Amino acid sequence: LFFPCRPCCLEALLAEAAAPGEPARPCPCPLPRGDTSLSRLVRLLLSARRSLDLCIFSFSCPQLARAVHLLHRRGVRVRLVTDAQCMGLQGSQIGRLRQAGIQVRHDQHSGFMHHKFAIVDQRMLITGSLNWTIQAIQSNRENVLVVDDAECVKPFLDEFEKIWEEYNPAHYSF
Amino acid sequence: LFFPCRPCCLEALLAEAAAPGEPARPCPCPLPRGDTSLSRLVRLLLSARRSLDLCIFSFSCPQLARAVHLLHRRGVRVRLVTDAQCMGLQGSQIGRLRQAGIQVRHDQHSGFMHHKFAIVDQRMLITGSLNWTIQAIQSNRENVLVVDDAECVKPFLDEFEKIWEEYNPAHYSF
Repeated sequence: LFFPCRPCCLEALLAEAAAPGEPARPCPCPLPRGDTSLSRLVRLLLSARRSLDLCIFSFSCPQLARAVHLLHRRGVRVRLVTDAQCMGLQGSQIGRLRQAGIQVRHDQHSGFMHHKFAIVDQRMLITGSLNWTIQAIQSNRENVLVVDDAECVKPFLDEFEKIWEEYNPAHYSF
Repeated sequence: LFFPCRPCCLEALLAEAAAPGEPARPCPCPLPRGDTSLSRLVRLLLSARRSLDLCIFSFSCPQLARAVHLLHRRGVRVRLVTDAQCMGLQGSQIGRLRQAGIQVRHDQHSGFMHHKFAIVDQRMLITGSLNWTIQAIQSNRENVLVVDDAECVKPFLDEFEKIWEEYNPAHYSF
C-alpha cells in the first residue's frame, strides 16, 4: 500500500465491523467511500480474530484508533507498544485506547521506539514507513508492506515479544 | 534487520569494496569490527552491480554515504530521492553525494517524502522504518526488511519511477 491517499469516509466499514449484519445508518459526510490505501489498511486490521500486536511510533489517526478499539471490544487480544515522547503529543490516541482498557507499554529511552508495524493473529505482518497519523496518511509519501510469509513474520513476532517484556512497567526505573 | 545496533568500524569492509583484493590498512579506531545490522545493511548495498535506487527521508549517516559514493565511483547507476525539508539539515549527506556527481531529486510539497527504501539491481528491496541517520542506527528501535520476491519488489520499482519522474527538476514550480 502506498500513501498519501485521499480523505475517505470509513463510517460504513467501521459500522459494519461493529455490528455485522445490521443495516448501517448512511453517513451524511461529503467524503467519498471508495477503496483507498487507508480503507485497505483498516480492513486488514479488522480481519483480526485472535490477536493484534502493535508497535507504533506515533498514533493519532482517530479512524485507526476506532478500528483498534473495536477489535478490543470484540475480544481480540490487543497489545500496543508506542514511543514515550510521542504518546503525550496533542491528538495522540494512546490515552483514549488506554482508557478503553487496552494494554499499552512504552519505552523509557532517549532513543525512539520508531517501529511502525502490526501483527494480525500472529501470522500477518503489516509494516512500513507509515506512522498512524492523518498527516502521514493524507500528505506524505509512505509505504506499507503486507507479508504473511512465516519466515518474514517470525523475527517481528520475536521483536514484539522482546520489546513487550523489556517495556514491562515492572522494569521502569523512573 | 533490527536496530539499534552497537557502534562498529566499517573501514575494512569499505576499503575492501573500494579496492578489492588490495590489503587494507588496519584501522586504528577502537570500535569493534563484528557483524552488526549496519554492517549487514552496508554489505547488501555494496552487492549492487548495475543500479541502486534510493528513496530516503533523512540521510546523514557518513558510513552509508560512503557506501553509496563508492558504488557511484564503481559505475553503478545511483539515483537518490529525498525529502526537501530534511536534505538541508545539519549533517545531511545529500550535498556531498550531489557534489560527487550522484543524481538527486526531492519533493516540493509540504508533506514529507517519508519513504526509507533502497532497491538494488532492480531486484532486492531493502525497506523499513530506518532513516539513514546515526541516531536511528545507534539509538532507536528500528526494522529493515530485505525482500527479493518480485511480486513485492515490483510495486516499489513502480513507485520509485513515478516519484523520480514527478520530482524531475523540469517540473519544479518554485
